Amino acid sequence: MKTTVLSQTDIQAIVVEIGVDRLMDELIARLEEAFQNFDPRQTAVPVRDGFSYSSPRSGLLEWMPLLQTGEHVLMKMVGYHPRNPDLSALPTILSDFSLYNATTGQLEAVVDGTLLTAFRTGAASAIASRFLARTDSRVVGLIGCGAQAVTQLHALTRVFDVQRVCFFDTDFATMDSFEQRCRPFVGEANFEMSSILDILELSDIISIATTIDIGAGPVFDDVPTQEHLHINAVGSDFPNKFELPLPLLKRSFVTPDVRVQAEIEGECQQLASSDIGEELYQLMQRSGFLPNLKQCLTVFDSTGWVLEDYAVTMLFLDHARRLGLGTEVWMGTQSSDPKSPYVFLEGSEATELSPTLAGSTASSATEKKRGLS
Amino acid sequence: MKTTVLSQTDIQAIVVEIGVDRLMDELIARLEEAFQNFDPRQTAVPVRDGFSYSSPRSGLLEWMPLLQTGEHVLMKMVGYHPRNPDLSALPTILSDFSLYNATTGQLEAVVDGTLLTAFRTGAASAIASRFLARTDSRVVGLIGCGAQAVTQLHALTRVFDVQRVCFFDTDFATMDSFEQRCRPFVGEANFEMSSILDILELSDIISIATTIDIGAGPVFDDVPTQEHLHINAVGSDFPNKFELPLPLLKRSFVTPDVRVQAEIEGECQQLASSDIGEELYQLMQRSGFLPNLKQCLTVFDSTGWVLEDYAVTMLFLDHARRLGLGTEVWMGTQSSDPKSPYVFLEGSEATELSPTLAGSTASSATEKKRGLS
Repeated sequence: MKTTVLSQTDIQAIVVEIGVDRLMDELIARLEEAFQNFDPRQTAVPVRDGFSYSSPRSGLLEWMPLLQTGEHVLMKMVGYHPRNPDLSALPTILSDFSLYNATTGQLEAVVDGTLLTAFRTGAASAIASRFLARTDSRVVGLIGCGAQAVTQLHALTRVFDVQRVCFFDTDFATMDSFEQRCRPFVGEANFEMSSILDILELSDIISIATTIDIGAGPVFDDVPTQEHLHINAVGSDFPNKFELPLPLLKRSFVTPDVRVQAEIEGECQQLASSDIGEELYQLMQRSGFLPNLKQCLTVFDSTGWVLEDYAVTMLFLDHARRLGLGTEVWMGTQSSDPKSPYVFLEGSEATELSPTLAGSTASSATEKKRGLS
Repeated sequence: MKTTVLSQTDIQAIVVEIGVDRLMDELIARLEEAFQNFDPRQTAVPVRDGFSYSSPRSGLLEWMPLLQTGEHVLMKMVGYHPRNPDLSALPTILSDFSLYNATTGQLEAVVDGTLLTAFRTGAASAIASRFLARTDSRVVGLIGCGAQAVTQLHALTRVFDVQRVCFFDTDFATMDSFEQRCRPFVGEANFEMSSILDILELSDIISIATTIDIGAGPVFDDVPTQEHLHINAVGSDFPNKFELPLPLLKRSFVTPDVRVQAEIEGECQQLASSDIGEELYQLMQRSGFLPNLKQCLTVFDSTGWVLEDYAVTMLFLDHARRLGLGTEVWMGTQSSDPKSPYVFLEGSEATELSPTLAGSTASSATEKKRGLS
């Protein structure tokens, strides 16, 4: 079997072909199912690890592996380099996914994960909000208006009838362009540049995703909010990087996506163990009594879970296969004798391209670009 | 910048174009330099981690990250699935490398690592043997004659004037085909199917790389050897998997590639800490007195070091660039606005391919297959 490479070009072609709303709906549905069915005996998710460095620029590159027993291993690589947009015309968050067969170790796919990471982070917030925010939520607040804010709002509009969007960013240009960047999906909602104070006072649901510096949090001091406010805390992703003020966390019901991870790099690092609620999937799987959290102040501490990446990877691969998108390459899998690493050299002078050899390497002709055109 | 994908086809084309001997010579030279210059303050190499499973088949998939500060992050993925050759016509060891820019996190290359892993493991043994075996070594023994044995022998022939090759495998077909599989590189050496006893008695250098089961080691009991024998112990790569008998280890000078890793999954797991010598790179970097280890019984405990993978990746990428080989794809890096994940949808209906949009995704035309033809 060949390895499928889904590039940015392929990912964008899938979004164009399927439609960004339908894709988000499908992802929310699949992710909700994944949360409801998650079984740690079948799915191994070690705590992520990574390299962080301050030279030549501050950055972080993490690996997030997952084993779905008998099916796949997914390795997500994700980079966080906050100077990228300004200095390199690149997104802050870059990512790719490698998918392996868990019977043979064969590399089945390499998928550009940059859009998919923003997509799944949005979908996770939509699921948390469906579970924890009031069903009639109308006002959504965004603190931080970068790339993640776009998919946060998009996902929320698929689950709620959003009528007002209040948003703030410390960078005026980023705030100024936010409405424009949301045009591909937002219908009738009113966009209102707001202060953080107004956002906290008015919103039914808030998603916060900033690039606040390590050690510089929280992003704002505690202020009054709606009693039923639900917050998706998205930007905490590093030890000593957090966004929310401790008093607000202490009077909220806080549910992390992955507790051990959130205690290291999420909002939960501010909290004592006894102040942290169950993980979102556990709440969703609970069959017994659950208090009505929709009327309470709630925080979803979203540090990013590779289970979400697995769901979005499989969704896009399914569409790519159906649409015939992607580039197919041979990766270590094509051999007449797996014990003979140089078998392809047989019958040839190793120093020049003989006709025989040209034939034996002509499989490059089978590495065709599949595409819509 | 685009991401370069080097498939198996590209790797083979490089070997054909450059020649397998010259490539091995270049790798040995680069790797020797990498060992001599290795500085743990510049190069971070966390202990590898992985998933091991017994269902549906026994297997292991590991990740081996490396940070070369200011230059690259390399993520090596390597699978060990001993039933692959028999049940899936795939190599036991499959691997791929992902190379990232350590300033932006951008994915620069994805490289098929299966041949490269065998290649660098051979080169590492050649370097250890040059340092620890007698310069006039003529007799090389191979215990286990799978894919790794081929590159072990190849690398040793580039450093020593090998005249006799004694080899053994528990699987007769594997033993029977070994000489044939070495034809692309071996000149005048005599190949002799041998018993393990004979190999141990006769050899100046031995490389052992078997698929002995976990808990079933050692592969043989201690027997007499040449006083100056050097052993490259390649097959130990899992807790409770080891190949050499403890008494032989105890009377040898044992140098691991990576001590902490070798203590977990190499021959060193059999040894007390005080029985383990310095790491090979430390020996090579030592400027003060070093006893003449070439006359002693020595063991290189080669568990596989990602520094080796970094060297071989860069070597093949350099050749690929010069030869114009590889497939180039855009991975998350091409955006007129990095804060706008849906920017490519602008000016279009998201549900159909408008002419504008077809234009904006037509960059797929730039994802061309580069090749020799």
